Amino acid sequence: MEIKIANNERIDQLYAEDVKIIQSKDVFSFSLDAVLLAHFASTPAKGVIVDLCAGNGAVGLFLSRRTQAKITGIELQERLADMGQRSIQLNQLEKQIQMVHLDLKNVFQLIEADSVDLVVCNPPYFKESATSHKNPNQHLAIARHEIHTNLKEVVQVSSKLLKTNGKLSLVHRPERLVEILNTFQEFHLAPKRIQFIYPKKAKEANMLLIEGIKYGKVDGLKLLPPLFAYNDQGTYSDEIRSILYGD
Amino acid sequence: MEIKIANNERIDQLYAEDVKIIQSKDVFSFSLDAVLLAHFASTPAKGVIVDLCAGNGAVGLFLSRRTQAKITGIELQERLADMGQRSIQLNQLEKQIQMVHLDLKNVFQLIEADSVDLVVCNPPYFKESATSHKNPNQHLAIARHEIHTNLKEVVQVSSKLLKTNGKLSLVHRPERLVEILNTFQEFHLAPKRIQFIYPKKAKEANMLLIEGIKYGKVDGLKLLPPLFAYNDQGTYSDEIRSILYGD
Repeated sequence: MEIKIANNERIDQLYAEDVKIIQSKDVFSFSLDAVLLAHFASTPAKGVIVDLCAGNGAVGLFLSRRTQAKITGIELQERLADMGQRSIQLNQLEKQIQMVHLDLKNVFQLIEADSVDLVVCNPPYFKESATSHKNPNQHLAIARHEIHTNLKEVVQVSSKLLKTNGKLSLVHRPERLVEILNTFQEFHLAPKRIQFIYPKKAKEANMLLIEGIKYGKVDGLKLLPPLFAYNDQGTYSDEIRSILYGD
Repeated sequence: MEIKIANNERIDQLYAEDVKIIQSKDVFSFSLDAVLLAHFASTPAKGVIVDLCAGNGAVGLFLSRRTQAKITGIELQERLADMGQRSIQLNQLEKQIQMVHLDLKNVFQLIEADSVDLVVCNPPYFKESATSHKNPNQHLAIARHEIHTNLKEVVQVSSKLLKTNGKLSLVHRPERLVEILNTFQEFHLAPKRIQFIYPKKAKEANMLLIEGIKYGKVDGLKLLPPLFAYNDQGTYSDEIRSILYGD
């Protein structure tokens, strides 16, 4: 079977995971956020994983290297879902991963409530408002701004999908920490692990990873060691290099 | 005037601040927590500062070097309040600082509601329960366990003391982050800055510093750069040395 790669697309490789991913900067490219989310998530050995706001499917592709679980990516944008499906074929992972073009509101048409072991999500980070500065490229604006979904909906749908003791792993922005924790509590997800990512030493955090457990105990939150994206020389830190390249 | 130092007491000095503090390991000694709390707090140039759970008064003594504000330490344990008052005399700071032996529940006998610019607090960290492992030394148990006060009361009293836009700076344990943020919200304190302290690289955080602003805006939380207490050699990190010794 031949896999079509459009003119404005390229194939990137994540070396540490030996995964090939079809990318296009015209619509969306996976970033460090997706790599760190996949690295952070506690994967079940088997069972069911759902990737909400899956984009071009990068998180599911990375996770497939660590688990036998079936992985379903849910993506609202048809163009991205199609790229994701072709990346799955390129890696010959059709038996483990599927990419579905679907609004996450409608995910229960496809996947039963209370049936999922792990939900991962790299959602739009920025609140939608009349004055918010959005990317004129509609594909990128939808990926970054809460235009078609928002934090509350993502957490609500995730919690409904999960089995008791199932886990949600989310990457988001630190300035929304309070709202994230409130929403986790509202939908019965007990925060268990949080990790902050700092661009470099002596800078404020610009990313957070958080894991919640459905109907989990409220106590026992762990704050994982901080991760620095870049070192003083402006290149990836040793920790990030190890995650990206397996050095 | 002669200041009495008991046999089981000693005088410690915080070099960076040039402050002398009467200490006794029999009842309580200030620790890195107090130093970091004082360092973290945003001090008003003048006005009123209250230190709740003041212990031997270390936080107020450190803060006095950075502000003209009047500082009142509130301490439940008479023995500690007395040590604190003698330390104030030792540093000739009687005009700026006072130490009061008082249960924080009764602080409004002394200080009006809505009148304070900054509250600092290094409260007992550990929940009180029949099974909790407490120090047999009652002085230390009261300082560490929520025997006579608890997080909710501390935050409630702090918020009531503060003016609108007044600030609470608190040091606590990361595993209680969710409860801290919930309690801040309950008592109208908007979290503005959080800093996590890690014992060393690649370890989970064991301390957190948090600042809330009374009736502040909910957005705009900053996650400050992480602090590591010790370096790989097991001695204080450069950042901590600088805070302790002014190196």
